[in-house]
Amino acid sequence: MSGWRDCRGWQRALTREPSSECKTPEEMALFELQNYLAASGCGRQVGIKTDPSMDESFQISESDGGVLIRGGRRGVLYGVYALIEALELGESLPKGVRTPCYPLRMIDCWDNMDGTIERGYAGRSIWFEDDAFCYEPDRIRRLGRMLAGAGINVLCINNVNVHMPAQQLPGSLLADTAALADLLRPFGVRLMISIDFSLPLQFGLESADPLDLRVSDFWSHLAQNVWHAIPDMAGFLVKADSEHRPGPNAYGRTHAEGANMLAKALKPFGGVLVWRAFVYNCMQDWRDTDTDRPCAAYDLYQPLDGMFDDNVILQVKYGPYDFQVREPVSPLLVGMNNTRMGMELQLAQEYTGQQIDIFAMPPMWRRLFDEMGKEKVSAVAAVSNLGRDDNWTGHPFAMLNLYAYGRFAWDPDTDPETVIRRWSALTYGFEKDLTDRLTSLLMESGRVYELYTAPLGLNWMINPENHYGANPYGYEFMVWGTYTKADRNGVGIDRTAKGTGYVSQYPPQIRHKYEDPQTCPDEYLLFFHRLNYDFVMKDGRTLLQRIYDDHFTGYELAEQMAETLDKMPFPEPDAGVIKERMEKQLENARQWRDVTNTFFYRFSGAADAKGRKIYS
Amino acid sequence: MSGWRDCRGWQRALTREPSSECKTPEEMALFELQNYLAASGCGRQVGIKTDPSMDESFQISESDGGVLIRGGRRGVLYGVYALIEALELGESLPKGVRTPCYPLRMIDCWDNMDGTIERGYAGRSIWFEDDAFCYEPDRIRRLGRMLAGAGINVLCINNVNVHMPAQQLPGSLLADTAALADLLRPFGVRLMISIDFSLPLQFGLESADPLDLRVSDFWSHLAQNVWHAIPDMAGFLVKADSEHRPGPNAYGRTHAEGANMLAKALKPFGGVLVWRAFVYNCMQDWRDTDTDRPCAAYDLYQPLDGMFDDNVILQVKYGPYDFQVREPVSPLLVGMNNTRMGMELQLAQEYTGQQIDIFAMPPMWRRLFDEMGKEKVSAVAAVSNLGRDDNWTGHPFAMLNLYAYGRFAWDPDTDPETVIRRWSALTYGFEKDLTDRLTSLLMESGRVYELYTAPLGLNWMINPENHYGANPYGYEFMVWGTYTKADRNGVGIDRTAKGTGYVSQYPPQIRHKYEDPQTCPDEYLLFFHRLNYDFVMKDGRTLLQRIYDDHFTGYELAEQMAETLDKMPFPEPDAGVIKERMEKQLENARQWRDVTNTFFYRFSGAADAKGRKIYS
Repeated sequence: MSGWRDCRGWQRALTREPSSECKTPEEMALFELQNYLAASGCGRQVGIKTDPSMDESFQISESDGGVLIRGGRRGVLYGVYALIEALELGESLPKGVRTPCYPLRMIDCWDNMDGTIERGYAGRSIWFEDDAFCYEPDRIRRLGRMLAGAGINVLCINNVNVHMPAQQLPGSLLADTAALADLLRPFGVRLMISIDFSLPLQFGLESADPLDLRVSDFWSHLAQNVWHAIPDMAGFLVKADSEHRPGPNAYGRTHAEGANMLAKALKPFGGVLVWRAFVYNCMQDWRDTDTDRPCAAYDLYQPLDGMFDDNVILQVKYGPYDFQVREPVSPLLVGMNNTRMGMELQLAQEYTGQQIDIFAMPPMWRRLFDEMGKEKVSAVAAVSNLGRDDNWTGHPFAMLNLYAYGRFAWDPDTDPETVIRRWSALTYGFEKDLTDRLTSLLMESGRVYELYTAPLGLNWMINPENHYGANPYGYEFMVWGTYTKADRNGVGIDRTAKGTGYVSQYPPQIRHKYEDPQTCPDEYLLFFHRLNYDFVMKDGRTLLQRIYDDHFTGYELAEQMAETLDKMPFPEPDAGVIKERMEKQLENARQWRDVTNTFFYRFSGAADAKGRKIYS
Repeated sequence: MSGWRDCRGWQRALTREPSSECKTPEEMALFELQNYLAASGCGRQVGIKTDPSMDESFQISESDGGVLIRGGRRGVLYGVYALIEALELGESLPKGVRTPCYPLRMIDCWDNMDGTIERGYAGRSIWFEDDAFCYEPDRIRRLGRMLAGAGINVLCINNVNVHMPAQQLPGSLLADTAALADLLRPFGVRLMISIDFSLPLQFGLESADPLDLRVSDFWSHLAQNVWHAIPDMAGFLVKADSEHRPGPNAYGRTHAEGANMLAKALKPFGGVLVWRAFVYNCMQDWRDTDTDRPCAAYDLYQPLDGMFDDNVILQVKYGPYDFQVREPVSPLLVGMNNTRMGMELQLAQEYTGQQIDIFAMPPMWRRLFDEMGKEKVSAVAAVSNLGRDDNWTGHPFAMLNLYAYGRFAWDPDTDPETVIRRWSALTYGFEKDLTDRLTSLLMESGRVYELYTAPLGLNWMINPENHYGANPYGYEFMVWGTYTKADRNGVGIDRTAKGTGYVSQYPPQIRHKYEDPQTCPDEYLLFFHRLNYDFVMKDGRTLLQRIYDDHFTGYELAEQMAETLDKMPFPEPDAGVIKERMEKQLENARQWRDVTNTFFYRFSGAADAKGRKIYS
C-alpha cells in the first residue's frame, strides 16, 4: 500500500476506496453511505431521496428510528457526509434544510504541467508531470472525496500563471482535461482552468484585443469546444495585466471590457469568468513614495463597479497586499456593490509558515468575514495546499485548513473553535480533554506565528526569495511596493489622509476606526500608521517595547506548543512529521525573534525593558 | 558564419581558423606564424627553432632583417604569439629569454555537465550539455588559441562542486575527456579535472578515508587509468570539506592527510593535486560573534604548513572572504612558507558586476601581488569568465581580464596600464588618443564599481541570491559569516587584537599598518575596524560623509564612463552590447548609490553635508 492511501485525514471512517463504478454524485452518495453503515456497524436505517430542485441542498430527517436524507443530485452526497460526520462525532443530526451560502466554492491549484506547484508545500502536482497529465485514478477519486467531504465544488487545476503547455488545456489537451473532469464528476466537483489572456496569439491571431471581433469569435469557438467536451465545466480563471501576465491593457481596453468579452463567450454554456483583481505595479521604484501598493486594486477596479457582466466574478485576495499574516480586509471587497465578487483565501501557507509552522486559519477567516460582511461576495476561492505528499498537505494539521475552508464556504458564520474541534476529533479521535488541548493549540497557532514574525501589522519582513524566515530589510529596496521604512526613529507607512490616503478607500465607519492610532486596533497599527518607537500604546507600553515583547512571547508560546504536542499520542506517521516540523518551527521562531529584535535594537538603540537578551 | 567565429578579441590578426592538422604546439606555432605572415603581408623572414630544454620559454632574436624564434616545444608557440603581438602593436620585438614566472597557469571552469555554469555570465558551457560532452571542435580550437595566446597552460574543465555525472569524468567519461584533451594539446593547454573526494563511495567502496589502503589503492588505479588515457593530464582539483562538499574531516583526518593521499596517487605520472583552501563554517549563527569567517582558512591550514607533499598545491582565494571587490590579500598566502601555494583569482565577475558592469582587474591584481610578494606562490588559477556567448565573455571588455590574467601569470610585475593599453590597441586598433581614453576608462573601472557599491572595505551589501545589486542587510542574518553589523552608531567588525584578532594573522609589518585606523588605508578601513559614523578620516571628512561622497562620486564617474563610451567608434556587434550593458550598469550604480546612502541615512539620521538627495 502506498502512503497516500493510508492518510484519510478527517475521513478516517471511510475505509473503502471510492468506487470507479459510481458515475454521479447520487450513486456516490449511496456507495459512501452503504459502506460506512456496513463498516461502522451503527445499525441505523438510512434512506436517500433525490429531489433535483434542491441542487446542492439537503435535509436530514429522523422518524421511527429511520433516517432520510433528502437532497438535490449533489445535495444527497453532502447530506451523506454530514450524516457520517455527525454519527462519528456522536452529535445530533443536522436539522433543517442545509444550503451552501456560496454557490461557487473553489480550490485554485497553482500546479504547473512540469509537476511543480507554485507556492506548493506538500510535494509535486497530483495530476501533472513532465508536461502532461499523469495521475493514479484512485488518488483522484480520493481527492474528490476529500473535496466533496469539505463541501468544495470547483477545482481549478492549473496555475494562474499559465505556462506552456498548460495554455493548451482548452485546446490540444482538452480530451485529457475531460478525462480528469470525468473522475471528479461523481463527487460534485467541477473543473475550472486558468487561461492566458493572450491565447489567441498562440492560435495564429495577430491580436488578443477584446474588442476585436476575431478575438471574441476565437473565444466563443474555444468555449464551444470546451463545453462540448466537458458540459459541466465551471468556467475560466484569468490573471491578466498582473505581474507581467498579458491582459487588455496592452490594447488600451479596460478590465471590464476584457472580462466581459470572455464572459460572453462562456455565457451560453453557463460558465463563469473569474477575473483576478491582483493587479499592482510590480516594478515599483522604492524611492517613489506617491505609489502605495495597497491602494492599487481599489483605484483600478472601483470605478468599474457595475460594468461587469453578471457571469463575471471579480476575485479579490482577502487583503490589499498579498496573503500576509495580518491585513485588513481589502477595501475592494467592501466597496463593490454592483459586481459579483469573490474572496480569495490561501490554504497554501505561502507567508504563514509553509506547512512547516502550524497556522490554523479559521480565526483569521472569522475576522475577515466579519470585517467584510458575508453578503459582499457570492463566491469564495482558496489557493490549494494539496500535493503528492503521503499526507496530502505536508503537515497533517494543514488539512484542517482545507476542511475548515469548505465549512466557511458553506456557512461563513462558522465558529472557528467549533470547526477546529470537529476536525480534531474526526482526525484523531482523542478523548475530550486531548481534543480540547489540540483545539486550543490550533486556535492559538496563527496568533503565535504572528507574534514571532509580524505583529502589529508589520508585513514583508520575510525572505523575498522563498517567503519563509526573517529578513527584515529584504524587501525594502525591491520592486514589489512592499516597504516598512524602518529607520532610527520609527517604522511604518502613514496610510491616513495625511499619508498615502489608503484608509479613505474604506467606508466611514471602518475608516474612522483605523485612521486614528488611538482607536486603530493594535494588530493593524503599523499597517495604517508610521509611528516612532516611543509611541505609547493603549496598554502603556512603547511601540518598541511591544515589538520586543511580542517576539519574546511568540517564541515562548511556540515552545509551549512544542511541549504540548510532545505529550500528545499522535499515531504514526503523523507523530514523526509533527515532531520534526515543530523542531523546524522552533528554530524559525527563534530566528524571527532574534533577527527582528536585533533589527529594531540596532535602529533604536533602546534595550529591552525587561533585560532579556537582544543581540547587538 | 556563426557569431563566435566573428569574435577574435585581441587576436584579430589571426584570421584563419586553427588547423585540425596540427597535433603539437610546434606545428601550431608554424601554422600560426605562416598564416599571419601571409595575411599581414609584413614581409619579414621568420624562422622557428625548437630547443626542447627550453620548455615553455622562448627567445626572439633579430639579425640581418631575419627573425628567429627559439624556444621549447611549447615555448615556440608562445614566441609566435609574442612576435605577432609586437608586430601588430608596432613595438620592438621582446628581448632576452622569456620564461613564465609560474609553471601552472590555470583557468578553472565551473561548468556543470548539464550545460550551466556556476557563476557564469557569458552563456552556457562551451563543452558540456545534457549531461554529456557536446562541442564544436572548431570552437575548442579557437578557445585553445585564446588560452595559448594569453599564455595559459591548464584548463580545469568542470565545476569544483562536482555533481553527477561529472564525477565520472575520470571514469566512464574518460574517453570523452581524452578527446577534448587531444583538441587542446596543440595549444600547449593541458586538462585538469575537479574530482569528488568521496568518489570511492561511487565505485562501491564503503569509505573514502584517506588512510584506508583500499581508498589509496582506488585512487592509484584511477590515476593510472587517467594518465594512460591522457598522458599529459595536469592533475586533479579538489574542493573538500567546504560548503557541504565531502572531505577528510568525515574520517577524522587532516587536510594534509587527505591531500597527500591523492597527491601520492598522481605523483608517478607527474600530476599535481590542487587542494582548495576555501574552507569556513558556512552554517554560522549570526549571533555568534566569536567566529569570524576571514580567520577560518589560516586557522585551519597554517598549522599544517610543511606537511603537504611537494606535488600538492594549496589554492587560496586572493582574499580571506570570497572574491569581494576589496579584500586585503589572504594571510594564508603570506604565511605559508613551506607549502606550494597557488593564488586563485576570479575572472568571472561574480561580485564585481557580472560582466554587465565594467571591471578591469589588472589594478586589483597589481595590488594583490604587491601585498603578497610574487615569490609566495608557485601557481596561479583564475575562475573562468568564458561561455557560449558569441563574444565569449558576455561583455567584450571582460576578455581583457582573460588576456591580462595570462600576462600576470607570466610576469606578476606586469604594469596594469600597459597591459590594458596593449589589449585595447590589439582589440580595437583605435588611434592613440582613443586607445588612451579607453585605457584610462578601463583602468578606472574597478575603482568606479567599488565606489558606487562597496567603498572602504564594506563588503557583502550585495543581493545574496545572485550576487548582483544592492541589498545592504541581505546577508546580515544569514549563515554565511558575512556581516557588517551596521547600527545607528556605526558599522564594521573590529578585527584587531581587541576584536576578532584577524589582523594578527599577518606578519608584523602588515599588521601594524592595518591595526590602527589612523594608518589603515581608507580602502580597508571597514574591513579591519568598527567605526562610528562620526569617525574623522585622514582627509577630515567623517566616515558617514565619506560613504555618501563615495557613492555619489561612483555614480557620477559611471555616468562619465557612459558618455566616454558613447563617443567611441566601437564596431558592431560590440558597440550594441557595450551600450546596452552600460545602461544596465548605470541603473545598477544608481540603485547602489541610493540604497546604500538611504540605508546609512536611516541608521545615522545625518543628512549629506552637501545637501544632495538622499531618499528617506
